[in-house]
Amino acid sequence: MSSAEEATAILERAKALVGPAIFEVLRRLNPELSMSAIYHCEGKGKGARPALALLSAEAAGATSHVGLPGAVAIELIHDFSLIHDDIIDADTERRHRPTVWAKFGVGTGVITGDALHALAYETLLSDPTPARVRAAGELTRAVSAMIAGQSMDMAFEHLPTITVEQCLAMERGKTGALLSFACSVGAILADADEGFISALADFGMHLGIAFQATDDLLGIWGDPARTGKPAGSDLRVCKKSMPVVIALNNSSSVAVELAKIYGCQDEGRFISDGLAQTDLAQMDLVAAQPVLDDAAVNKAQVLVEAGGGREQTQALARQHFEEAVTALDSIAQTNTVNAQAIQEMRCLAEFIVGRDF
Amino acid sequence: MSSAEEATAILERAKALVGPAIFEVLRRLNPELSMSAIYHCEGKGKGARPALALLSAEAAGATSHVGLPGAVAIELIHDFSLIHDDIIDADTERRHRPTVWAKFGVGTGVITGDALHALAYETLLSDPTPARVRAAGELTRAVSAMIAGQSMDMAFEHLPTITVEQCLAMERGKTGALLSFACSVGAILADADEGFISALADFGMHLGIAFQATDDLLGIWGDPARTGKPAGSDLRVCKKSMPVVIALNNSSSVAVELAKIYGCQDEGRFISDGLAQTDLAQMDLVAAQPVLDDAAVNKAQVLVEAGGGREQTQALARQHFEEAVTALDSIAQTNTVNAQAIQEMRCLAEFIVGRDF
Repeated sequence: MSSAEEATAILERAKALVGPAIFEVLRRLNPELSMSAIYHCEGKGKGARPALALLSAEAAGATSHVGLPGAVAIELIHDFSLIHDDIIDADTERRHRPTVWAKFGVGTGVITGDALHALAYETLLSDPTPARVRAAGELTRAVSAMIAGQSMDMAFEHLPTITVEQCLAMERGKTGALLSFACSVGAILADADEGFISALADFGMHLGIAFQATDDLLGIWGDPARTGKPAGSDLRVCKKSMPVVIALNNSSSVAVELAKIYGCQDEGRFISDGLAQTDLAQMDLVAAQPVLDDAAVNKAQVLVEAGGGREQTQALARQHFEEAVTALDSIAQTNTVNAQAIQEMRCLAEFIVGRDF
Repeated sequence: MSSAEEATAILERAKALVGPAIFEVLRRLNPELSMSAIYHCEGKGKGARPALALLSAEAAGATSHVGLPGAVAIELIHDFSLIHDDIIDADTERRHRPTVWAKFGVGTGVITGDALHALAYETLLSDPTPARVRAAGELTRAVSAMIAGQSMDMAFEHLPTITVEQCLAMERGKTGALLSFACSVGAILADADEGFISALADFGMHLGIAFQATDDLLGIWGDPARTGKPAGSDLRVCKKSMPVVIALNNSSSVAVELAKIYGCQDEGRFISDGLAQTDLAQMDLVAAQPVLDDAAVNKAQVLVEAGGGREQTQALARQHFEEAVTALDSIAQTNTVNAQAIQEMRCLAEFIVGRDF
């Protein structure tokens, strides 16, 4: 079995446990909310976060069922964040289907996300054992960090200069915090040692940064057929992802040229900006047009690569993937560890990050 | 001192305790989020919910400080719900200032509300004593009920018939659940008896329904100078509030005529509807125009009154106010009760609901 096949099998096994548990929770919502929530959840992603949550319980010597409430909570939070991010970014498609707001309206998108957010805590606190309470507390911190990261990402659009450190801090919050929680919540629920829990949390944080780095690479150089997004999609909307930030901080003329292309970003791309300038009587929306045309996207792509954005982001992905593996190795010798589960977490990590950096 | 003056003094006292605690929490947000969050919280309402939370701790014989984490959590949840509701309803003004989304954009409105939502649970779970964990669990249920109520309210816009019972269930969730939590969380944190806690929760639920009923009356017959909204504002946007639902269920021709006026509602008033019909390339917004003109508003006002909507909603407010007082009286004889706090809760209840029904 190839490692991709192995990863797929691990994900399928997790899905068989988590899927029904999620739908069980969603069915308890009132009909108005469950329709939009189930619509979103049917367009499922890989389900890596809940799978890692189950594996982290198994790693600590417990059964995957022990990790289940954590897996359900993490998936609900992930879904809530996707639904709201799609509104924030004015994205109309996700996994080749209309996003929740594009299908049901912005109001329904807002309230559906809110419902899943509340439900995540409710899931953990409905049976408040010490371990679940601890997990719920960690979840509130992870969610707050995720929201802070998302708001930094939004603020970047309007900032003339961003350092690589600021960009990394943003990605740590936006992507790392939740993956860190996913990779450790099962161990928390299994009452594992603090050192064990924190090694898994480190693994998840580094994995999150590595994953975000490869995602940023795909947003610029990804194959549209595989990503489901137009080529250079992040450049098209002048997103200041890691490769772009690296190139903008390059000391050569490349940075100046790239900044010039990105300079057009203030012409009002976001729904949010459009609406902010209106009043109730005249709420015409500034069209959420992509800012850059094909020629500008191509030019930006060349400049980001020339400015070291591709190479250094690949190096960043490699570095954090290795740190993730090191964190995992640090507990591989523990007495109580389930080596099989650790091996499967590593397999998933490779699968998520991809190996082409 | 008049009872209005007494209520104002109680609210001021609560604000002196809760205000700094809220700002302390908000200041810990990253700069992007704290700006919009503090902007919203500066445009403060009466602060009735946190005041009731503090009083419910005092009622159980504790100091108001014991109720403080509950008061902060309830205020954060209330603020989150207002910020998101303003997006859902496309409201551009609240308390004579632009709403968060109208000032900072829809994206910032979404994320700011999310941040306050997470922060409410974080506040209670940062020090997970059994009482705080219990409070956090109750809060998740209250928030889920509130969200369910809000989504029912949204769904009502598109439903041809709604019964009075459905409308009451919606208001129970949308307004009652959070007020019920506010009126009992202090007693939970003070480790009061179950009977004591549940009497205060009942008090808050009935108070919430009575409050919503008077709010519905103000939305149709309120003085614009006092409500800060245009006359007949709920009718103008074809809102199916309790008085309207009562009149629409009237067996006379009044219901038919009113339904005819309200029939124009499907022409696409909401931002959400507007956006739902667009794609990324052409995201023009259907203007969020009020549906009814002055003449139609006046006619609807007369019809709702003729259909018993005004009188029966007043009766509903009276009935639930009395049930609220009865619940409060049921614990007034308890050994451990602080009679002064109970009297102050009653004073606030009268102030919130108003006495002109």
